[in-house]
Amino acid sequence: MDVKYINPFIHAAQTVFKTMLGFEAKMGKPILKNERTTSGDISGIMGLAGDRKGTICISFHEKGALFVFKTLVGEEHDKLNPEVVDSIGEITNIISGQARKEFEQEGVNLKAAIPMVVVGKNVEVNFITKIPIISLPFYFSVNNNGAQEVMFLDFSFE
Amino acid sequence: MDVKYINPFIHAAQTVFKTMLGFEAKMGKPILKNERTTSGDISGIMGLAGDRKGTICISFHEKGALFVFKTLVGEEHDKLNPEVVDSIGEITNIISGQARKEFEQEGVNLKAAIPMVVVGKNVEVNFITKIPIISLPFYFSVNNNGAQEVMFLDFSFE
Repeated sequence: MDVKYINPFIHAAQTVFKTMLGFEAKMGKPILKNERTTSGDISGIMGLAGDRKGTICISFHEKGALFVFKTLVGEEHDKLNPEVVDSIGEITNIISGQARKEFEQEGVNLKAAIPMVVVGKNVEVNFITKIPIISLPFYFSVNNNGAQEVMFLDFSFE
Repeated sequence: MDVKYINPFIHAAQTVFKTMLGFEAKMGKPILKNERTTSGDISGIMGLAGDRKGTICISFHEKGALFVFKTLVGEEHDKLNPEVVDSIGEITNIISGQARKEFEQEGVNLKAAIPMVVVGKNVEVNFITKIPIISLPFYFSVNNNGAQEVMFLDFSFE
């Protein structure tokens, strides 16, 4: 996959973390996934279509999602309730919107579908495609003791 | 929601059942869902974008998915393995492709994203939208004793 189709997703995630959540997320090494499956406790899915097509899947463990919710909304929750689900949907929407802007600058016009959020322990989310799946890990601290969580931004893009 | 945005999904599902699987699926009463959540053991998700936007989610219980796989491929499996996952992805692709054709006849051009298939018991799949979610149940017999399974085609479409 041409790097010009990867960078928009990297920039989008980093911009959204900084502007919406107010902190830097440190990107780990991008992985070309062999398996087509991602798994987390909560995953936001967004389909993109237009000049090209793709789907992104943003996954968190419960602890990471609750931290994102707290940072975004200012309230503390101890489980993945509908408000937390909405906030992960919103983050998915915003990251994919930002990625679409970045793609526009490359001359690639994309439109977004309606986001979905999948909730459940050890849920498998499979990309149904023969093209590569890229997984970008973004690390962030959830407290002052250095405890880290990760958001995976997985995508496949034709 | 205007009925002209519902009919393409009904026609698409019925056409695909008949041509791909070789049997009629009897549609039950369409439901306007209040909750935003669908659940099944396996769900195919497809984002659509273009003149309008929407996402469809096709859910089966394990038994129904295994029957669809057997009918489509001719092999019997006893659990939701990667081959079955692929076949549900394929059905999702084909139904949404057929729906896009039907929409084109109404002058609405849509493109498809990359399909995703979610696997897990009692998984929640949430539509992140404020617009209505329509749920279309399609019933089909899985053996000669009259045992029935259902495929839910849930969608939200702006």
